[in-house]
Amino acid sequence: MVKKIDHIGIAVYSIEEALPFYKDVLRLKYIGTEEVHSQQVKVAFLSAEETKIELLEPMSSESPIANFLQKKGEGIHHIAFGVNDLSSRLVELKTNGIPLIDEVPRMGAANFQIAFLHPKAAKNVLVELCEKNDGGERNES
Amino acid sequence: MVKKIDHIGIAVYSIEEALPFYKDVLRLKYIGTEEVHSQQVKVAFLSAEETKIELLEPMSSESPIANFLQKKGEGIHHIAFGVNDLSSRLVELKTNGIPLIDEVPRMGAANFQIAFLHPKAAKNVLVELCEKNDGGERNES
Repeated sequence: MVKKIDHIGIAVYSIEEALPFYKDVLRLKYIGTEEVHSQQVKVAFLSAEETKIELLEPMSSESPIANFLQKKGEGIHHIAFGVNDLSSRLVELKTNGIPLIDEVPRMGAANFQIAFLHPKAAKNVLVELCEKNDGGERNES
Repeated sequence: MVKKIDHIGIAVYSIEEALPFYKDVLRLKYIGTEEVHSQQVKVAFLSAEETKIELLEPMSSESPIANFLQKKGEGIHHIAFGVNDLSSRLVELKTNGIPLIDEVPRMGAANFQIAFLHPKAAKNVLVELCEKNDGGERNES
């Protein structure tokens, strides 16, 4: 099912303020920052070998990250596992009765297709599955 | 400073209840379960390539994990980064004004030396640094 832990998503009020700890103190490699307009979120990636840190800053009060920050404050938001053939994985999970937020993949940051499981699937941990959208086989539902 | 993300620690009421999601649904490789008496915590490890999932279940109400569960409920507890020469890393962090919970390494699970940074170092994210205690150079303070 899972290839690796792709990234850990962390909700922050400001990427500019959060970045120096990861970049200058832990000295992770800064990959870049982009905006995901569909989610109204600004996203910065840093890498520690095969697993990345993803800093998530809301671009408006409509962002799911703004909602998270208001309820829980800054902190770890989700764990993302890399998979192959995300669409088939979601069908498999649904068939096995695992509660999903996204039943079909949607576009995330960094040209990845993503889908979230419902936190009740994993004892209140928000789990994302993701797959690099590299122009190969792509199953759209 | 950091080699890789060693593991993600997740606080749970019951490893027995939490394990099947990671083991049977995500199909991560189950490494094993052990007890860390100094922290009054039972710890189960699963691996996704180089990064592990660590499930943390309190063994008594004195456990820091019992305290976390009472305040926040089940969920992601910390991110652990693997380092070399943990003692020197801690001196370096302290010199740079980074607030630490542990100024010297202590024994954790799986024969690792560990130390926690204070969550205010990283915008409310609890960061652990860890180093495999493999019988090589070991700096005890």
